[in-house]
Amino acid sequence: MIDVATLVEQARAGRPRAVARLITLVENAAPQLREAMAALAPYTGRAYTVGLTGSPGVGKSTSTSALVSAYRRLGKRVGVLAVDPSSPFSGGALLGDRVRMQDHATDPEVFIRSMATRGHLGGLSWAAPQALRVLDAAGCEVILVETVGVGQSEVEVAAQADTTVVLLAPGMGDGIQAAKAGILEIGDVFVVNKADRDGADATARELNHMLGLGEAREAGDWRPPIVKTVAARGEGVDEVVEALEKHRAWLEERGELAARRRRRAAEEIEAIALAELRARIGDLRGDRHLAVLAERVAEGALDPYGAADELVAGLTRG
Amino acid sequence: MIDVATLVEQARAGRPRAVARLITLVENAAPQLREAMAALAPYTGRAYTVGLTGSPGVGKSTSTSALVSAYRRLGKRVGVLAVDPSSPFSGGALLGDRVRMQDHATDPEVFIRSMATRGHLGGLSWAAPQALRVLDAAGCEVILVETVGVGQSEVEVAAQADTTVVLLAPGMGDGIQAAKAGILEIGDVFVVNKADRDGADATARELNHMLGLGEAREAGDWRPPIVKTVAARGEGVDEVVEALEKHRAWLEERGELAARRRRRAAEEIEAIALAELRARIGDLRGDRHLAVLAERVAEGALDPYGAADELVAGLTRG
Repeated sequence: MIDVATLVEQARAGRPRAVARLITLVENAAPQLREAMAALAPYTGRAYTVGLTGSPGVGKSTSTSALVSAYRRLGKRVGVLAVDPSSPFSGGALLGDRVRMQDHATDPEVFIRSMATRGHLGGLSWAAPQALRVLDAAGCEVILVETVGVGQSEVEVAAQADTTVVLLAPGMGDGIQAAKAGILEIGDVFVVNKADRDGADATARELNHMLGLGEAREAGDWRPPIVKTVAARGEGVDEVVEALEKHRAWLEERGELAARRRRRAAEEIEAIALAELRARIGDLRGDRHLAVLAERVAEGALDPYGAADELVAGLTRG
Repeated sequence: MIDVATLVEQARAGRPRAVARLITLVENAAPQLREAMAALAPYTGRAYTVGLTGSPGVGKSTSTSALVSAYRRLGKRVGVLAVDPSSPFSGGALLGDRVRMQDHATDPEVFIRSMATRGHLGGLSWAAPQALRVLDAAGCEVILVETVGVGQSEVEVAAQADTTVVLLAPGMGDGIQAAKAGILEIGDVFVVNKADRDGADATARELNHMLGLGEAREAGDWRPPIVKTVAARGEGVDEVVEALEKHRAWLEERGELAARRRRRAAEEIEAIALAELRARIGDLRGDRHLAVLAERVAEGALDPYGAADELVAGLTRG
């Protein structure tokens, strides 16, 4: 097993294999993960992350690929993280099926990785930010996080990005579906893809109405733009990038970019701390202290709350 | 609001209203619960608890009522806790429909209570032992815990008793259903109810086979008895009580009764301790320490694991 320091060094030098292996550590919640995260930390905090979500069939994969092309034209190093919580496959099995992604397969400035998180204790919401940190340290200036489904956890992951793009397509009653899935609230930029089809304008109007974009807003508030695209032909994709850059500038002006990142970091720290405490309590099974407390509770000499207090006090001294 | 000390005193004196109000505290995870548990503790550890579980239609409610009658004939004070995790109702709404239970409604030596646990943070597995403690302190010598369904949490609750009774009925393919639900493993005593129906002997034989009761066991091992009953007519119910008492004697001889109770107490303490730690972490939201840690992680000055360690260390000093 190659050591973590070497892996991190190689990842920073842009070696795809090292990046892939570090993300595998994340997927597997490997014991070396802690060391890897500590080694990566100094090189993180630079990437701009964009979440993409939407119902199946709206063209998420095609749009992601088109966005990669657009950012490459701007000379940026790009990372793609495709997240599928329901898939048992990982490490590219999923993306192997995605013809359009293969356009970028030989580009050394593009890192593409799918991630499954079965067995990851903290689940997707825990694993995704760690994988982003790997891509961030590998020098990706933009990272696109594409969620395969629109379940609760996928929406959470997409919402964890700096900017969240919600994709729709005409003729799917999609606005209503999106509203039901609760993804309208998380969209910073909306894309109506397959805009060459009938009903694209109707979908955009419906969306405009549902978002209340016609209503007055406070000065300085962000007004989510609706961009029409035909991602398969690259049409409108530069306008999406423009909308993303505008949102990013808005976030930075308001200090909101840093605030969002601090909020996400706080949530991540909390989740890890809780898992650690749970593990510590688990380690006490068979421990003499817990056994004595349990005996006293069973005998009625102590109540379970009092016992829990003593257990926690013991933990926190430890 | 009456004070907890008075409620506990009245419950100990066998006042049904006080018992009911204490169990309501448990259901609602009320702030006074901690004080109530501390006040009750010295009067607990005496009751013998019997869990009853089985598929809908096997006659759990009728069997419970018949067991109450049998224990009353022995002069015992009896408690009944009917647990329905899916019900939004509580405090008797459920039992109000149960005609047979009303046989005991006017008996001052019988305490009957249904319990819903919606909104209880720790869920059913947390609330049930606390409710049992109330009935225990109220002087119930035997407490029957009847679970309404056979879901995972109901089975867990039934298995938390000193002795667990699994009920079946003929002609329901019930043995196989029970095996699927994983309740064969938890049965200390098996009851084939509605034994006047066709197929009762076949069900008993099938059960005998599935439990491997024909196979050799080590000397001193418990061999779960299979008792046939017609609970609606009270037939076989004294034999069930006899089987329960035998199992209890076996548990006591082997020191297993105390061991089971210590194990249950340990699990309860763990669950409460974890909830307390979770609450402490939650209290840190908006706290300066977490905010500083989050900022350092967002900037890449610290990794999230290191931050979590600092958070935990801060908690445990606090």
